[in-house]
Amino acid sequence: MSSIREEARRMKLAAPHLAAAPIEQRNAALENIAKELEKHQVEIFQANALDLQEAMEEGIAPAIQKRLKYDAVKMRDSIAGLRELEKLDDPVGQVLLERELDEGLVLRRVTVPIGVIGVIFEARPDAMVQVASLCIKSGNCAILKGGKETAGTNRALFEIIQKAVLEAGLPEHSLFQAQQHSEIDELLACDQDVDLLIPRGSNRFVRYIMEHTKIPVMGHSSGICHIYADEKADPEKAIPVIVDAKTQYPAACNAVETLLVNRQIAGKFLPKAASALAKAGVRLRGTKEAAELLERAADTGLWRAAANPGEDAETNHATEESAKRPRIAPEDIMDEEDFATEYNDLVISIRLVENVREAVEHINSFGSHHTDCILTEDDAAAEYFMQMVDSAGVYRNCSTRFADGYRYGFGAEVGISTGKLHARGPVGLDGLVTYKYRLVGGGQIVADYASGKKQFHHRDL
Amino acid sequence: MSSIREEARRMKLAAPHLAAAPIEQRNAALENIAKELEKHQVEIFQANALDLQEAMEEGIAPAIQKRLKYDAVKMRDSIAGLRELEKLDDPVGQVLLERELDEGLVLRRVTVPIGVIGVIFEARPDAMVQVASLCIKSGNCAILKGGKETAGTNRALFEIIQKAVLEAGLPEHSLFQAQQHSEIDELLACDQDVDLLIPRGSNRFVRYIMEHTKIPVMGHSSGICHIYADEKADPEKAIPVIVDAKTQYPAACNAVETLLVNRQIAGKFLPKAASALAKAGVRLRGTKEAAELLERAADTGLWRAAANPGEDAETNHATEESAKRPRIAPEDIMDEEDFATEYNDLVISIRLVENVREAVEHINSFGSHHTDCILTEDDAAAEYFMQMVDSAGVYRNCSTRFADGYRYGFGAEVGISTGKLHARGPVGLDGLVTYKYRLVGGGQIVADYASGKKQFHHRDL
Repeated sequence: MSSIREEARRMKLAAPHLAAAPIEQRNAALENIAKELEKHQVEIFQANALDLQEAMEEGIAPAIQKRLKYDAVKMRDSIAGLRELEKLDDPVGQVLLERELDEGLVLRRVTVPIGVIGVIFEARPDAMVQVASLCIKSGNCAILKGGKETAGTNRALFEIIQKAVLEAGLPEHSLFQAQQHSEIDELLACDQDVDLLIPRGSNRFVRYIMEHTKIPVMGHSSGICHIYADEKADPEKAIPVIVDAKTQYPAACNAVETLLVNRQIAGKFLPKAASALAKAGVRLRGTKEAAELLERAADTGLWRAAANPGEDAETNHATEESAKRPRIAPEDIMDEEDFATEYNDLVISIRLVENVREAVEHINSFGSHHTDCILTEDDAAAEYFMQMVDSAGVYRNCSTRFADGYRYGFGAEVGISTGKLHARGPVGLDGLVTYKYRLVGGGQIVADYASGKKQFHHRDL
Repeated sequence: MSSIREEARRMKLAAPHLAAAPIEQRNAALENIAKELEKHQVEIFQANALDLQEAMEEGIAPAIQKRLKYDAVKMRDSIAGLRELEKLDDPVGQVLLERELDEGLVLRRVTVPIGVIGVIFEARPDAMVQVASLCIKSGNCAILKGGKETAGTNRALFEIIQKAVLEAGLPEHSLFQAQQHSEIDELLACDQDVDLLIPRGSNRFVRYIMEHTKIPVMGHSSGICHIYADEKADPEKAIPVIVDAKTQYPAACNAVETLLVNRQIAGKFLPKAASALAKAGVRLRGTKEAAELLERAADTGLWRAAANPGEDAETNHATEESAKRPRIAPEDIMDEEDFATEYNDLVISIRLVENVREAVEHINSFGSHHTDCILTEDDAAAEYFMQMVDSAGVYRNCSTRFADGYRYGFGAEVGISTGKLHARGPVGLDGLVTYKYRLVGGGQIVADYASGKKQFHHRDL
């Protein structure tokens, strides 16, 4: 069995060949995968059943078990995803610039695959299909390492993917599956041969990757997203957006963690919002000021339960009760530094701010530059917020949960980047290519331009 | 005096304000710099005279002294450069994608400045003006550290630039000049506030930067550029290109370091090329095979001196002599691993290869992914080379010295990147921006799309 280092070396040599493969061949590989998945579904589901059984024996939470499962519905989605990806334009070979520098000296900037990419992803069998197919479509060689809880399913899937790729005539070393956790550290040391790492998973895991490699890393270690309810927020729109952003899928990186409320409206708005959140099962944390405001509102009966607490929320007697008296418990009163917290759970931080300026300052200081939203009917406040917040996504009047490659129409995403270089936000095919400059001449030398004998005319073609 | 860390913090806060400054204001700052340079030329030239005097007392080589000098000619170039930069389109606020995800839910991908950039550059006063103006035009805050040999000139220049920027109404902490070498290490630790580092200078220095910071680094530590003379090379075009690429400015990163010659033509071609190079004062190194070929050619008088040995070359009796018998001395015979060498001097490595495939393998193994050229009249060989060589610049029939922001028509360059992420090759204004996603809705929530109540239609506007 080959080591990751040896495999990365072979991939580096294979990469220019995969990069040169015509789009028809890369699409044929995707179509082969789609067909083979269908053909081998029994084996795949069997492998998945074993993974699930083991997970249950280890006492993994039901919510996670659901994610590990690969069934007919998920396979149908995988196949539909492959067919959609086939239809997308080739990201490779796009001419971004075409310029005649001088008579007979033509410069072109043309997109090319990045080369060799390492993707380390969570235990979700559909991720294996998605990541492999994005890399193939974009002409990149890839070392794939999925979560260990679906190791058997991943093995079955990878075997099919690998066969499909070879049958399409793509190079032998286009893809490789790493199966041991120990191979991750080996991969991190392959900075001579691996051009990019895309880690997905827990904050701690992603940070570990970022701190232990010289390979460029694309991704995000945390998603501390904010919603700011401005003085001119429309509660009818605003409260459902807040509830959706917190509860529609709290474990996602684009779920909201902090609610900032303008002081001018807080007296009326916060009790309503808090009630809707509490009804949806959300635990409220916040500053002393926010806690006191909620206590006063409860005492005076000023607040009203919001109309629409979000569809996914499971309500029960206890949350009905807390929705009537939403409060921040004494142990949930926060200091300023607590605000840099990502809960990934049904918990939210609340703070009052004076105006949009203070909201922006808070977000730029405590956020993770992922996705942040203003709720307002005031165009000037919205423009200030969207201009000044330094995040990959700046939203107005919609849920932060929209920050996603599918929802943006990218076909799929390989990850979400909170870095500022290369791709930012949800990363689709576009983020998996770079470019090279092609310059074609007829014997031109620089000495002629340095001496003034010839001049550049820089004419875009 | 403030520490770099404190200054970087202040810049981080100033960055969104500079990013929001209209293009008219950023261009006004450039125009102010142009005018102030002219007005203060006496002081600047005096400061430069002191720098030069000190450099001469320290015995700095005449070639370097020339680079330190800032005179009327260089100032005229600086001013012309500023005016050209003013004319270029605003790189900020460009809408790269505009898509309606659903009725009333519109996504835009819009270019924005990167934020806070640290640029460490060589002792060349014109670089100070160039780098500062590129950062201002692109809306980026910048910490600037120039080479110590022009410290006095840089101080004078920076004072003018800073005043011009403030007079245009841009934020106080838009620019900062670091003056102590010790401040570089301080800068490397500012990964919370500095978004990008651009180091320029020696290989060792750039590698040091890359290895001692968590901040993303854009640049290149080495420029090992190749020229491959193919079986179908036209010697009339090829030899002047080789001489230009080696001798027009040997210290540049885009100067050629290695000449690969196809074996089928080597017997005739290499003696001619070697003679032209030797006549231009270039020392030849190479494999035993190349050395023996040249010895045989000299013995049999098969070679002829090339017609055009390059204009910059200083010829003297000794080089005239060596041009008649160009050879690789016994101490200059190279092993394979020696080929990963950047000379930055009038020295070249020579190797024979069987075909374009072997040339590509050599380049991808020993090169630095900077700029590599094929000399050929054969379209298929050229296409193979340009497709398969994994470098920022792939050239046909022209000098590698064209790899430069000015020559590409970018107005100016802040550096040349051999990395594959973000900008690659010469980096102009385009490489100093990133983007953010702006999503504007009217209260949309993800739950409605997850439940199937609503569908995305993804219509590009």
